Amino acid sequence: MTVSSIPLNERPALVRKACEALGVSGFIIPRGDEYLGEYVAPCSDRLAWLTGFTGSAGLAVILPNAAAVFSDGRYTVQMEEQVPHALWERRHVTLEPASDWLADKAAGLSVGYDPKLVSRSMLASWAAPGVELVPLTVNPIDQAWTDQPVAPASTVVEQPLALAGESSASKRERLAVFLTHSAQDAVVLADCTSIAWLLNIRGNDVPLTPVAHGYGILHSDGRAELFVDPARLDASLANALGADVAVYAPVRIEERLGALAGKVVRLDPVTTPVWFETTLKAAGVKVVDGNDPCTLPKAVKNSVEQEGSRQAHKLDGIAMTRFLHSLSVSAAGQHETDLVDRLNGFRAQSSDYREQSFDAISAAGPNGAYPHYRAEVGKDRVLTPNSVYLIDSGGQYPFGTTDITRTVWIGPDAAPQAIKENFTRVLKGNIALSRVRFPPGTTGHRLDTLARAALWEVGLDYDHGTGHGIGSYLSVHEGPQNISPAPRPTPLEAGMIVSNEPGYYEPGAYGIRIENLMLVKPSAYRGTKGVFLEFEILSYTPIDRELIDVTLLDDAELAWLNAYHAEVLTRVGPDVETDVLAWLEHACAPLLRNNA
Amino acid sequence: MTVSSIPLNERPALVRKACEALGVSGFIIPRGDEYLGEYVAPCSDRLAWLTGFTGSAGLAVILPNAAAVFSDGRYTVQMEEQVPHALWERRHVTLEPASDWLADKAAGLSVGYDPKLVSRSMLASWAAPGVELVPLTVNPIDQAWTDQPVAPASTVVEQPLALAGESSASKRERLAVFLTHSAQDAVVLADCTSIAWLLNIRGNDVPLTPVAHGYGILHSDGRAELFVDPARLDASLANALGADVAVYAPVRIEERLGALAGKVVRLDPVTTPVWFETTLKAAGVKVVDGNDPCTLPKAVKNSVEQEGSRQAHKLDGIAMTRFLHSLSVSAAGQHETDLVDRLNGFRAQSSDYREQSFDAISAAGPNGAYPHYRAEVGKDRVLTPNSVYLIDSGGQYPFGTTDITRTVWIGPDAAPQAIKENFTRVLKGNIALSRVRFPPGTTGHRLDTLARAALWEVGLDYDHGTGHGIGSYLSVHEGPQNISPAPRPTPLEAGMIVSNEPGYYEPGAYGIRIENLMLVKPSAYRGTKGVFLEFEILSYTPIDRELIDVTLLDDAELAWLNAYHAEVLTRVGPDVETDVLAWLEHACAPLLRNNA
Repeated sequence: MTVSSIPLNERPALVRKACEALGVSGFIIPRGDEYLGEYVAPCSDRLAWLTGFTGSAGLAVILPNAAAVFSDGRYTVQMEEQVPHALWERRHVTLEPASDWLADKAAGLSVGYDPKLVSRSMLASWAAPGVELVPLTVNPIDQAWTDQPVAPASTVVEQPLALAGESSASKRERLAVFLTHSAQDAVVLADCTSIAWLLNIRGNDVPLTPVAHGYGILHSDGRAELFVDPARLDASLANALGADVAVYAPVRIEERLGALAGKVVRLDPVTTPVWFETTLKAAGVKVVDGNDPCTLPKAVKNSVEQEGSRQAHKLDGIAMTRFLHSLSVSAAGQHETDLVDRLNGFRAQSSDYREQSFDAISAAGPNGAYPHYRAEVGKDRVLTPNSVYLIDSGGQYPFGTTDITRTVWIGPDAAPQAIKENFTRVLKGNIALSRVRFPPGTTGHRLDTLARAALWEVGLDYDHGTGHGIGSYLSVHEGPQNISPAPRPTPLEAGMIVSNEPGYYEPGAYGIRIENLMLVKPSAYRGTKGVFLEFEILSYTPIDRELIDVTLLDDAELAWLNAYHAEVLTRVGPDVETDVLAWLEHACAPLLRNNA
Repeated sequence: MTVSSIPLNERPALVRKACEALGVSGFIIPRGDEYLGEYVAPCSDRLAWLTGFTGSAGLAVILPNAAAVFSDGRYTVQMEEQVPHALWERRHVTLEPASDWLADKAAGLSVGYDPKLVSRSMLASWAAPGVELVPLTVNPIDQAWTDQPVAPASTVVEQPLALAGESSASKRERLAVFLTHSAQDAVVLADCTSIAWLLNIRGNDVPLTPVAHGYGILHSDGRAELFVDPARLDASLANALGADVAVYAPVRIEERLGALAGKVVRLDPVTTPVWFETTLKAAGVKVVDGNDPCTLPKAVKNSVEQEGSRQAHKLDGIAMTRFLHSLSVSAAGQHETDLVDRLNGFRAQSSDYREQSFDAISAAGPNGAYPHYRAEVGKDRVLTPNSVYLIDSGGQYPFGTTDITRTVWIGPDAAPQAIKENFTRVLKGNIALSRVRFPPGTTGHRLDTLARAALWEVGLDYDHGTGHGIGSYLSVHEGPQNISPAPRPTPLEAGMIVSNEPGYYEPGAYGIRIENLMLVKPSAYRGTKGVFLEFEILSYTPIDRELIDVTLLDDAELAWLNAYHAEVLTRVGPDVETDVLAWLEHACAPLLRNNA
């Protein structure tokens, strides 16, 4: 919830008044900020300020006599709870899209939007017959929100070569060659994680992702322009950036875009606000569509980043092991939110831990059945005996980002057979994906079924993807690859990191998810199309043996599981306390068949 | 090879002369005919007449001073052998596309094409800078080919309701509802298999697929027009078609298209020659793109067609069993082409057998490494002792179409372990796909990896799809579904038939493929999105135990194999001779682990 002295119920009227002054009948406000990223700073939480809704995805439309908030199925309940019903309709963004609502309520009206907050694809999704969508140079919410926080201005620091593994000059040179080959003079970058990767910089402008807010321009000769207040740069950074990276105050972006007049400039219509396209075209720039060229090289981790990730996962595995051990000592009666604090306390025992990589999902019993559940202090559930507990969390370390999910049985009794069967089927999917070897050129989409087949066998499934990319001390979710029923064209390639997180959700009862991160690496096998690829597991934390039905594992799966647990013990054992080690040795002991 | 008194070397000059008379510098001739189908009648084998090349895919371009034949990797060797090198360049159609060659050789020239033989997508693929592509009303090859055979005019017969399972009136009514909902007044059909399905008619105009050549128009009120010489209709058919199906001589198609002036007419740009689009638009028809609406309902077999397929597969399994038994008696020393005759002789022992559903692939030893190999009399290989033999064949029965591949070891010695391992990995893929259960909405693309994972494990793969649809006494290859690395959007649904044919090819040595047809059917499991689907195996013929390494099969796979063989014995055993039965009992005996 945003902090503001203006009562929630009074905000819509203030925005309506501001709209009127700007000559429009209404306004559309998405959740995102000027950088279209996953997390927004308090000053940019305009959707939450206006409507009360704090979900991570959605939009609102306000008209003179109607207003609606839109989000997806994850947030249906939360919208109902947070948004004043007298002021706002609540709608499902895909089943009851904003365009339909606009066609119904706004025909004949002109409705404003802030072109700095909106991508071309967003804008297209709002098109409605009879409704004029008007770009505004002033945001009416910013006018009405008189106690809006100031923009973040964290210190921008260097991501040193020892952690980044490749100099910014080298990265810029690689992309310069690509731009030249594409007959493009420059690319404009609005994704802060792309700029962070390209220039080897990090910041702290938003929670959970260590980026600095700013835009960038990369020229086809390798020179770059960075639009961040120069005063924010760490003393050593200015020097590290070198002469080929010019730093400008953000206010100068329009002028510098104008300097591209006559050039061919690449723009990603998905990651760049429409304001850039309009501004460039008005300045006489030839704009060509093209995806953000940083996305793929950022996803392919170099050997230094790979080693950094292994190191981060070792620290994370120690913290997770201490946490799971602590659950064996004290779990029932604990609050979900306290357990998040407990886990992150273990993470913070390492001086390298910086912050969570996302808001942890700590879900007791039936809350686990919501894949995106977030516990809130005061409203969270207490763990009960003989229940399932699911914890999905991650950490930011300067050398890597982690993301891991474990599901554990809170005793004291043995877990019911039905839960064990479902857990074991999820585990079979995780193992199948862990073990697969595949030819170069294979998309994650083509591997997704391997993680589901054991659940499908008995008519079960899970309604989310199986894997996402992850940054190197950057965003916990990154593209372009995925492992999902929703196809993406980019094949998996060596150096990419992906999550492996099949699950099963029994509404009203419990949720199961088992997640490890995996590094794509070359295998020892060469096929006709090149070297086959396979996965190296990065996450090492025990998988709860209390939930495994060994009879459902075939010999190869059982061998994989026992080898995995042996490796957990080898990697984590030497770094934990005696009592934790004793617990870990039991947790990692080979599972045997009853008749063996 | 087409039969013509005009020497092959003289034909290009004749066509060049015809082009000159028509006012164009050259001509592009694809392999297909006016119906864009898989097989063409002798009169339409223009590519073969002009160039000598008889492959099933390709095109030729002839210019005043240059000429080239294009086909894909399957036909590289065949093109070299068949096409006179002095007259024609030979090029790979995707690696060295016709558009590049045209840009290089035909800049500034006008090149003709026959709009009745060309789809819009073909035409788009030939676009080259500086080259004018000109539709011709007269085909210069038809002018030059003075002894061109007459068009086929087989008798058109009814596919009786007892075999079709749904009346044409019912099918037309279903599609009429669809057209009405789509706000379309009619659809023009050029795919002969669509017309065969829609009107419950069959013919014999081309080999291997029992269709009659003709076009169709379906109106949104359920009335249809069929363009086939009325004299060709079997006496009973005219009556069976009823008053709502008007039959016109083919020459009247242009007039009847003109009668659609002012209407909205659906046209499939992939299956319909561009001549239709041009003609309709010239007549003032509003043409809208849309896929052939028969394709999906044709692919979903009704219960009568399903039962017919089971019956066809029973007959085919008996013939295949007799054939495999005969190989155990006499194989080494036999010619590949003689073995095709032998197999089809067994098929012909059933009075229901009509013809092959495609030219059988009978491949000894290294020839098996070409997935699309066709043996030719006089040039075919003789089976040698201790080699691998692959036979991929199918039959047309009035109640169903079959397609099956078996790979067998020709002794007398035991098969080498390396071949057994690769065969067993192909078998594991076949079994994985046979056993999978999956939620509604799943595409075959998402299942493809299951058939490959065991090969991928050791760096192997196969460079073709895993499964295709198949007709009901129609084309052996039909859409819209497939199981392939190349995605298609249509999910598998109950009633579809697909092949399951993973393989492995060792160049210069041998080829392995194991193919069964499978029916998609509802399972006993219901998920949140509906009833899960699974496969019913249709093909029952032994899988060569001499090539199976039992130690590579897990318990579930071994159980599947033994159950499959038990079912082969149950289905086929009662219908074969004593000596065949003795062989079959051995071939189907349970495989046991060494230590069992």
